Amino acid sequence: MEITKPYLLFLGDAPDQLAAKTAAGVVDWRPDWCVGQMRLPGCGADVGLDELDISAAAARGAKTLVIGVVNAGGVLPDRWIDAIVAAIDAGMDVASGLHMPLAAVPRIAEAARRTGRQLHDVRLSRERFKTGTGEKRPGKRVLTVGTDCSVGKKYAALALEAEMRSRGLDAEFRATGQTGVLIAGRGVAIDAVVADFISGAAEWITPAADPDHWDVVEGQGSLFHPSFAGVTLGLLHGAQPDAFVVCHEPTRKTMRNVKHPIPPIGAVIEATVAAGRLTNPEIRCVGIAINTAALSEGEAQAALDAASTAHGVPASDPIRFGMATIVDRLLEEVP
Amino acid sequence: MEITKPYLLFLGDAPDQLAAKTAAGVVDWRPDWCVGQMRLPGCGADVGLDELDISAAAARGAKTLVIGVVNAGGVLPDRWIDAIVAAIDAGMDVASGLHMPLAAVPRIAEAARRTGRQLHDVRLSRERFKTGTGEKRPGKRVLTVGTDCSVGKKYAALALEAEMRSRGLDAEFRATGQTGVLIAGRGVAIDAVVADFISGAAEWITPAADPDHWDVVEGQGSLFHPSFAGVTLGLLHGAQPDAFVVCHEPTRKTMRNVKHPIPPIGAVIEATVAAGRLTNPEIRCVGIAINTAALSEGEAQAALDAASTAHGVPASDPIRFGMATIVDRLLEEVP
Repeated sequence: MEITKPYLLFLGDAPDQLAAKTAAGVVDWRPDWCVGQMRLPGCGADVGLDELDISAAAARGAKTLVIGVVNAGGVLPDRWIDAIVAAIDAGMDVASGLHMPLAAVPRIAEAARRTGRQLHDVRLSRERFKTGTGEKRPGKRVLTVGTDCSVGKKYAALALEAEMRSRGLDAEFRATGQTGVLIAGRGVAIDAVVADFISGAAEWITPAADPDHWDVVEGQGSLFHPSFAGVTLGLLHGAQPDAFVVCHEPTRKTMRNVKHPIPPIGAVIEATVAAGRLTNPEIRCVGIAINTAALSEGEAQAALDAASTAHGVPASDPIRFGMATIVDRLLEEVP
Repeated sequence: MEITKPYLLFLGDAPDQLAAKTAAGVVDWRPDWCVGQMRLPGCGADVGLDELDISAAAARGAKTLVIGVVNAGGVLPDRWIDAIVAAIDAGMDVASGLHMPLAAVPRIAEAARRTGRQLHDVRLSRERFKTGTGEKRPGKRVLTVGTDCSVGKKYAALALEAEMRSRGLDAEFRATGQTGVLIAGRGVAIDAVVADFISGAAEWITPAADPDHWDVVEGQGSLFHPSFAGVTLGLLHGAQPDAFVVCHEPTRKTMRNVKHPIPPIGAVIEATVAAGRLTNPEIRCVGIAINTAALSEGEAQAALDAASTAHGVPASDPIRFGMATIVDRLLEEVP
């Protein structure tokens, strides 16, 4: 399942910029895939693209309407339906990361049937997976892991991919979450897979490859998050990474949506190596990615230096300082 | 979702005893719930109950026809349909652990609709779970874990429950697999839950209880199985056990369906304590359950003594020697 490019990003009536996080992620990392944005009356978000209606977007060659906005409860509101049906009638596919399947709306299902357009529900994989084998596959893999959910694992992976490609390496971002799938144009929201098939789905996402090829795998959750650690572990076993980067958000006090404290970075490194050895005995940490947005430049540099010294690997903020030092270490460790 | 008792166990045309493992498990642990068995021509299995047809079973009060046989691929063969429809028409519900939903057979779906009878697909939970909270709940919990899949975690949990009940304790087996659900009459096949909800489903299976109540939770998979460790970890976090028992099958050379070696019992204890601490800092190992069926009585006793000495907890074969020593230790450690 590959989502056809280019995209028209649909922001609907997103109340604010945060609600349009999915669209913003696509624009940040795949600007060339986006012909414009479409907003409904009352929309409070703006991702800075040309404002297009359906027919203007179709004229510019848009092939997929991407629902770039989240809605409370993951439900598709009635006021979006006209635009979605119009996009289908104008020849576009539709991609959505909402919990509710697009085809659950009868008018959308009917329009897709009538025109033969694809509906991509990136949270609901139609792929049938096998259980994981745990067998070593050719190709190289680096995985981002985290001290918590939502600490920048996707951005760190995309920044790794960008830095590696800028050096002429054959590197590919492998998406494991709904926004990541829209950014990659393919992948699997691994938290939506049936539990028996987590590691099997991870093996499918990052298949056997050329020995010099790098898959840069988007991590999910945290081994220390009581709600999601099972997903994190299955992904770690299936991805069988040669190397990993720990992502951390220093202002976070407790883990997302629960009362558990954020684990120390060292504990995450230790637990990831201990568990990851099962499918890749050579697994090692090659860097730490810290979100320093809340710190001044001097404070940020001091925090990164301290983390680097404490754990013996380069530390950087992927957005602020880039991933060069971490990629240097990655290539030293896994030549 | 509670499965109504008593059961008529349907063995179909199971080629051999192994194919009727589900029925055998129900008879072993819940003989009082079974009014009889029903076999089709060519059946090579026998679980030792009275041979009944549908009308004789209905006359004895059977309330649910339990499909006690597995079939290659989990598909319901056409030659079983007449008996299932007849059971529904005679007033019985139907419970199945096959991959294929009962209602996928039009005649079965139609009969259930017509009569208002329930179809229980124990692999396909209809329950909607929340994500796990990781918060400590009242009540006591003991979980069985394993060096591999299929090493006796269900039997060890049921034997624990039986021993605890024989001492007058308020103990309840909590099922997490399809056969376990049929034996308990309720529960969730946790490997069939969407990955995001593994620990949430485990919390639902073993809810807050009286401080003196014991839930004896059936374990799944192994933290060292590359296909299923995510399920095992999510279950461990959600069950938040005060104590666990490690189950082991000493004749096994590699882990089930993969090439990975069986981990040492000590590694399983260590990994379970390390991971389980996240939701229950007091977690501890209270025993080792070893399947000694392949050993003479003397050899078995020597193997159990060696395991007990090596790990400092009682070791027993739940079927051969019972769980008294392990329950003694459990009550000492968690009074």
